[in-house]
Amino acid sequence: MVDPKTQDSIPHVVIVGGGFGGLYAAQALGNAPVKLTLIDKRNFHLFQPLLYQVATGIVSPADISSPLRLVLNNNKNTQVLLDRVTDIDPDRQLLTFGDRTLSYDTLILATGVKHHYFGNEQWQSIAPGLKTIEDALLMRRRIYGAFEAAEKETNPEKRKAWLTFVIVGGGPTGVELAGAIAELAHSVLKNDFHHIDTTEAEILLLEGMDRILPPYAPELSARAESDLTDLGVNVQTKTLVTNVTEGAVTVRQGDTEKLVPARTILWAAGVKASSLGKVLNEKTGVPIDRAGRVIVENNLSIAGYPNIFVIGDLASFNHQGDRPLPGVAPVAMQEGKYVAKWIKDELCGRTHAPFCYHDAGSLAVIGDNAAVVDLGWMKLTGIIAWLTWVFAHIYYLIEFDNKLVVMLQWGWNYFTRGRGARLITGEDSLLTITPENLGTKEDLPLPAVKR
Amino acid sequence: MVDPKTQDSIPHVVIVGGGFGGLYAAQALGNAPVKLTLIDKRNFHLFQPLLYQVATGIVSPADISSPLRLVLNNNKNTQVLLDRVTDIDPDRQLLTFGDRTLSYDTLILATGVKHHYFGNEQWQSIAPGLKTIEDALLMRRRIYGAFEAAEKETNPEKRKAWLTFVIVGGGPTGVELAGAIAELAHSVLKNDFHHIDTTEAEILLLEGMDRILPPYAPELSARAESDLTDLGVNVQTKTLVTNVTEGAVTVRQGDTEKLVPARTILWAAGVKASSLGKVLNEKTGVPIDRAGRVIVENNLSIAGYPNIFVIGDLASFNHQGDRPLPGVAPVAMQEGKYVAKWIKDELCGRTHAPFCYHDAGSLAVIGDNAAVVDLGWMKLTGIIAWLTWVFAHIYYLIEFDNKLVVMLQWGWNYFTRGRGARLITGEDSLLTITPENLGTKEDLPLPAVKR
Repeated sequence: MVDPKTQDSIPHVVIVGGGFGGLYAAQALGNAPVKLTLIDKRNFHLFQPLLYQVATGIVSPADISSPLRLVLNNNKNTQVLLDRVTDIDPDRQLLTFGDRTLSYDTLILATGVKHHYFGNEQWQSIAPGLKTIEDALLMRRRIYGAFEAAEKETNPEKRKAWLTFVIVGGGPTGVELAGAIAELAHSVLKNDFHHIDTTEAEILLLEGMDRILPPYAPELSARAESDLTDLGVNVQTKTLVTNVTEGAVTVRQGDTEKLVPARTILWAAGVKASSLGKVLNEKTGVPIDRAGRVIVENNLSIAGYPNIFVIGDLASFNHQGDRPLPGVAPVAMQEGKYVAKWIKDELCGRTHAPFCYHDAGSLAVIGDNAAVVDLGWMKLTGIIAWLTWVFAHIYYLIEFDNKLVVMLQWGWNYFTRGRGARLITGEDSLLTITPENLGTKEDLPLPAVKR
Repeated sequence: MVDPKTQDSIPHVVIVGGGFGGLYAAQALGNAPVKLTLIDKRNFHLFQPLLYQVATGIVSPADISSPLRLVLNNNKNTQVLLDRVTDIDPDRQLLTFGDRTLSYDTLILATGVKHHYFGNEQWQSIAPGLKTIEDALLMRRRIYGAFEAAEKETNPEKRKAWLTFVIVGGGPTGVELAGAIAELAHSVLKNDFHHIDTTEAEILLLEGMDRILPPYAPELSARAESDLTDLGVNVQTKTLVTNVTEGAVTVRQGDTEKLVPARTILWAAGVKASSLGKVLNEKTGVPIDRAGRVIVENNLSIAGYPNIFVIGDLASFNHQGDRPLPGVAPVAMQEGKYVAKWIKDELCGRTHAPFCYHDAGSLAVIGDNAAVVDLGWMKLTGIIAWLTWVFAHIYYLIEFDNKLVVMLQWGWNYFTRGRGARLITGEDSLLTITPENLGTKEDLPLPAVKR
């Protein structure tokens, strides 16, 4: 590895993380008089808002992934490194990966968040979350494998457990997963099985608050709930999950607790910051919030270290509104662009304004023809909202990588009601379908899982 | 699981294997007065001729896979079972999967072949073959991971080993892989790296015979070799691989033996029959050939058991020409259709003619604009052959599943010289790139492999 810092006196900007924040910063710095290094542990940028579509067999992993080297091909000042940063030395301005180091003049940290099980990490192998391609393929295997297992099961109770899908968490990801699974059961797979009626599948969406999509306007939450109910989802609010075991979830509503037998339990309930937030906190004393997010200054740098910026889901920005900015793609994109501009302004000696987020609205898709969109000044539902969602996503997808194939795949799925990407992969066989061979990710850190 | 045999007196036809042979038989029996069960261990039919395109990042797994339930949706007499047949009792007409059984009146075995390392099975974890989606994703990870590792490597010798790709076996798969990797190195990835020149990569195609594509006409072999050389492939014929270790392959040419350091070694050299061939041999005394293929009668049934048929790559059909029919998709398709017709004729009391293969020609693709096609009465090369290859494959792809998206993806790749599906997946990180974390399939049976 060549360390650009040692080559000449041009400042070296290092971005860690190729998500929306890191990639937008890198693109905006492509013409700046700096040496730029983007480090990511994966060789592709992942369009996370569509990950639920991989999990439910609508599109393939490559359809929502853009090779980082390809996206940054025109950045002549940029090297891409495939590596995982393990440590930061803010005083010597050094990053560590394994036994090697890289020095920086300016550091942009954008490593995002991972799932959070609120102290019940043992649930992870049973109720997978949805953050990576591997997560999505695991969910896909579990979902389609459950229908296959139900088809073979002759015991009615066990069959019902295979046909019960529990989604924990009523935020956008939970809503999208529940809607997509309901469409599978009630439409896509309806005629594919001989011994089960897939429309009898129960899709349970559990939310602890009093309504789903809690950050949205109450009327949109209500509309989302009624749209989901129409699709065949059983929405349960004010419902807490108190235990998850192989084959069942325990839920509490008020004072009553009950056991729901279910072989497919999907986690969409919480996230925590990636570990570099903690490292930064230990090394610089910068405060972090309860989820481990780094509390940043009004220009997205951290207190005492004006050359270290934290952006995207890893950052907690509290200088606008009465809550920190949400962990969504538009915030990360705008933060990435802001920091890039800040760095360029600094090089020219220009003055800086604090970061200010321009909220263009929130949106969540429920199913074909159904979505909710909150533009602030206007709220949309139904097919208009769905079309808004489709075009917003196509716009961002093709911006990077001209993924027109995804558009065509959507069109095709929409008119044929098909799901082309419904492969059960990752295991060479499905001898008997159990949670063990429905699989866990190769990299799952829990040793308790049988392979 | 419901056993159709017990339900009524309609004959029960069971097909094991949803490849080209099994699926064509199932489709042709969809309107027959039989109960039909198709058993496969995977939930999808795989279009194997394009598997090398998944291995090299041209298309996604779902693009060449068709869900079996979807393909057989119109077969009202057909149930699909996801299971692996472990035993056959030909006298009681029973199949065994694990602890369950299924009875049949007529059995069609179409379970194909797997890789063969000719007694050197320990090479498998180092030099993966290409038969399944998981194989292809493993190859994709190894190929793209090798370029990433080379980019980080500062030792020139080690870097050269990362940039050396050895393909063992000069049949169609080996030729297709070598051509596609050469296109990556010389065209697709040319501008993506900062510290390596990908055009310096060495792509070695090794063949034991005196020419590549040995079953083809000699002039086509010569043309394929010159086309590959133009693409940047180093073709070595009369070359035997005598050893494979992590990081090197030992090759013998005549009396000289040499060690070639290479971190990416791909196996395209041999196949053997799946294990049900052996089971059938033990249970019925039917002869099998050296590769374990079942030697069939002139109607594709086996000696002494007129209700058991073996088709596709698992069958060795010696009643036409001086060699057994080759293990290619057209043979399997025609055999599947023939057996279906045989069964239908039998139900009507019609007489049967022996199976006769109509050879429409052989073809192998070398790269964009280059292929060789042997139609018997005519030989094609260059762009005409390539267009023939493209249209033949599109025809068969869309026949099953209207995969027009693949066509568009090809068109897109062709004009942009892009490779959209070049994800390195399956491991959450690529901390240091070594054969261990470049990965092995989850189901790889060798315990020697570190995870």
